[in-house]
Amino acid sequence: MAQAGRRPGQTETREEILEAARRRFAEQGYDGATVRAIAADAGVNAALLHHFFGTKQQLFAASMNLPVDPGELVPRILEGPEAEIGERLVRAFLGLWEAPDGRAPFLAMIRSATTNEQVATMMRQFLERAVLARVAEARGVPKVRVAGIAAQMIGFALLRYVIGLPPLVNASEEEIVGMLAPVAQYYLTPGTEKVRLPMHQEGGLARHWSETTG
Amino acid sequence: MAQAGRRPGQTETREEILEAARRRFAEQGYDGATVRAIAADAGVNAALLHHFFGTKQQLFAASMNLPVDPGELVPRILEGPEAEIGERLVRAFLGLWEAPDGRAPFLAMIRSATTNEQVATMMRQFLERAVLARVAEARGVPKVRVAGIAAQMIGFALLRYVIGLPPLVNASEEEIVGMLAPVAQYYLTPGTEKVRLPMHQEGGLARHWSETTG
Repeated sequence: MAQAGRRPGQTETREEILEAARRRFAEQGYDGATVRAIAADAGVNAALLHHFFGTKQQLFAASMNLPVDPGELVPRILEGPEAEIGERLVRAFLGLWEAPDGRAPFLAMIRSATTNEQVATMMRQFLERAVLARVAEARGVPKVRVAGIAAQMIGFALLRYVIGLPPLVNASEEEIVGMLAPVAQYYLTPGTEKVRLPMHQEGGLARHWSETTG
Repeated sequence: MAQAGRRPGQTETREEILEAARRRFAEQGYDGATVRAIAADAGVNAALLHHFFGTKQQLFAASMNLPVDPGELVPRILEGPEAEIGERLVRAFLGLWEAPDGRAPFLAMIRSATTNEQVATMMRQFLERAVLARVAEARGVPKVRVAGIAAQMIGFALLRYVIGLPPLVNASEEEIVGMLAPVAQYYLTPGTEKVRLPMHQEGGLARHWSETTG
């Protein structure tokens, strides 16, 4: 299966499947589009589509030209010492954006999502299924907390890579990790959602963190 | 000055100034466009322009249809108890977005900034002059820290109001304040930039916070 070889027409078939996927995802959203319908549109059977692209989520990542499938990235972030999960998340995210071929597809996705309701729907459903639900369950935190760190990272990418805000553009990778990792750690640590404001009352967040991260 | 009255032609003059401002800001950026040049384009003198719109920053806010001038908002966030600055920032930001006429202009600005290099330049320069520099100086933190909380809030607005991510859409204002205020407090508290990872070493962020917000 790994060595499928290159028969004539295989590249075209792949391209036709990706075309059909882009069309279906745009028209019906990530949830509404089925692998079966995409295969039928491309004139192939579902088994062949699966052979080429794997799961629906992997097909989506390929059709959007994402350089990485979140299905692979998320477990890499979750595995490892608890106290360093924030740092792993920020480093993985930076790795994607700083890679030469990594930036363009994400930029395209943010641009389309802010100008096109269909793309926004796709992105919303994909983020929820492929990222929020999975990370929330693995970490034992509410989905809204995972959305909080997603917001931090997407806003950071927008200001550093799209708007080009000088203090963020000029910051080194290590400075960025030092600044963002504690925020990621906060969102992904169970118990921090019970913090009450103002923060200094009864030790506030400081106390919760020292209790939960020891 | 507050009671300037409404002479015939005043509305047109205001509109011509705003038109000229939008054109100059788009062509030359926020820094490059001068109030004098905008006044000349609109066929008025600089004193009349100032009478109508105040400072360059206020003129920019008016020309972008922003419902609020950051020059007024920023001091309101900075004034008050230290330990509640994060909460004040999040509440002020939510107040803008939740207001019926507040959302559309910001959405338009995010959309244009991600698709148009000129708008990105304007937004970058305006954010730096009107927000980052001022807040950084008032709080005694590096500008990159203010950029960090700006990224969090812009990403939050993108996911809640543009993409419509369900866990953020369904969260109440109080839940959002409870979640984001500690992050704002972290960015705007001097000393937290010295936190070293992993966080649990020597008390990490928890210790720094208890020392600084005590």
